[in-house]
Amino acid sequence: MPRGLGAAGQRTPDVVLAVDIGGTTVKGSVFVDGAEATAERVAPTCEGSSSSLDTVLAVLSTLDQSARSLGHEPTAIGAASPGFVDTRAGVVRGAVNLGWTELPLGSILATRFGVPAAVDHDARTAARAEMALRPDLRDFIFIPLGTGVSAAVVTAGEMVVGAHGQAGELGHMPVVPLGRACSCGELGCLEAYASASAVLTRYLTAGGSAGSAADVSRLVGEDRLADQVWSEAVQALAKAVVTLTAVLDTEEFIIGGGLAASGPILLDPLRRAVAEMLGWRSAPVISASRAGPRAGVLGAALLGRSAHLSSAHDDPGEQ
Amino acid sequence: MPRGLGAAGQRTPDVVLAVDIGGTTVKGSVFVDGAEATAERVAPTCEGSSSSLDTVLAVLSTLDQSARSLGHEPTAIGAASPGFVDTRAGVVRGAVNLGWTELPLGSILATRFGVPAAVDHDARTAARAEMALRPDLRDFIFIPLGTGVSAAVVTAGEMVVGAHGQAGELGHMPVVPLGRACSCGELGCLEAYASASAVLTRYLTAGGSAGSAADVSRLVGEDRLADQVWSEAVQALAKAVVTLTAVLDTEEFIIGGGLAASGPILLDPLRRAVAEMLGWRSAPVISASRAGPRAGVLGAALLGRSAHLSSAHDDPGEQ
Repeated sequence: MPRGLGAAGQRTPDVVLAVDIGGTTVKGSVFVDGAEATAERVAPTCEGSSSSLDTVLAVLSTLDQSARSLGHEPTAIGAASPGFVDTRAGVVRGAVNLGWTELPLGSILATRFGVPAAVDHDARTAARAEMALRPDLRDFIFIPLGTGVSAAVVTAGEMVVGAHGQAGELGHMPVVPLGRACSCGELGCLEAYASASAVLTRYLTAGGSAGSAADVSRLVGEDRLADQVWSEAVQALAKAVVTLTAVLDTEEFIIGGGLAASGPILLDPLRRAVAEMLGWRSAPVISASRAGPRAGVLGAALLGRSAHLSSAHDDPGEQ
Repeated sequence: MPRGLGAAGQRTPDVVLAVDIGGTTVKGSVFVDGAEATAERVAPTCEGSSSSLDTVLAVLSTLDQSARSLGHEPTAIGAASPGFVDTRAGVVRGAVNLGWTELPLGSILATRFGVPAAVDHDARTAARAEMALRPDLRDFIFIPLGTGVSAAVVTAGEMVVGAHGQAGELGHMPVVPLGRACSCGELGCLEAYASASAVLTRYLTAGGSAGSAADVSRLVGEDRLADQVWSEAVQALAKAVVTLTAVLDTEEFIIGGGLAASGPILLDPLRRAVAEMLGWRSAPVISASRAGPRAGVLGAALLGRSAHLSSAHDDPGEQ
């Protein structure tokens, strides 16, 4: 839904190339003055260090060409990345699912495309999109359930980034003693039970047949194996919600990522499990992401916009 | 160590009656211009609603008399309470270990003693004492292990109070599925394994003989039963530290409360367990409280001082 295209008069419009880098796909779109100007591009994220970066660069090149074909010179890039992201330095310190370590993504993108590039943690980026849609949110935690599991924690209206900018790795909360192996090398992490990829892998490994976690969710109530895998995911997630509510007194948990598409199949039993474990206090609201699968791209657009604004004094945005 | 006593010249000194209300004891002292002016008073907290409040009132009466016998008119009260404390309203919303529900402690104390009275959560109060001793602390979590287990979370230098002022109930993090019954009515909470009272009760129930959790800690390495109870407490606590580090990227965990007196018997295995579970990132610093068993009283003195300062415009502090 393009809005304000060409309506900026003399002013150079904000033209942001926004990418949401996931463990499964890289998604991107062009935003002009905050409004989406193209259809979303989606490419499968490849395995290994150089190839997943190649996918990101290829998606951005396509977006760059799309923007130019619409008559717009890009002014900034916003990128949401999984893993440990040092947003001030623009460096992805570590993203296990992508094979990235100490990748200076911000400067790589800025050099390649000649515009300022801002990089942030995927969950924090998506949470900013939720905050833009609901300015009332003050004490909430956004939990995207995709290839991995992470979290963006907001307390008293402030995003928690942590001592080293590494906050949000909820996926590595220990939930099952000596449980399933996680990509981080530990056993029994939340991510090994409640991520979309864990739900699918566990179902397939146990002998089930499905193409995605969404397929597994549709079998809940009909297939005993699906029921078990799903219930263990819900219980693991409920432990996380209960723990964080107890410690942070969180008002609302917003569930996003691929698994959130399952809607009430996920949220209803999660609400029940959390309420059961929280007999001693009021349970938090548990809701589905408003921005949905687009939260990362929309947040990346906000990120790119702020990168453009903050660089406007140093750089006119033209190359 | 009285300091500045009578040195204030014309100015009325701050005379704070500070109490730290615990599940086992109520401790209190008088502070004049921030320096402790009396020896600490300690009284056993009684069971049930009215009697634990009676103990608090009795300790404060003794402190009030002590202050007056030194020639000082009290100017404020600071009180640290366990449970859910709404510090703005001065109300203890619920403290299971004390049998308190919706107790307007602030107004009860202010009315009884005729001075402003501030009430806050015990862990947050103690954490303020730690911050006063170490102004470098920015991203840390203070965990007192006493009759219960709670936490004070500080991120980017700000104390997290939560959506309803109820942050900090770490004791009710679920750590053992269908585990031991907790005072909150749930099963398998951290508090049922890692509080000083849980350590003692579990040891006694299993057939051991000890008078306190400290006694149990001294048997570690010599007594198989003590080893087991202690190791389960450490593992449960390590899960909490790992979870909070993953989510909040906490720089340091400061362990306080009665169990912290065990020192390296607790901290060494805790550091090892946390480092083992955090192979995927750097482990946080784990240290013992600097203020030690006095953190609550020292924090309550700071609390009372700020109550006096904030009421100074409305009330000259004389009755």
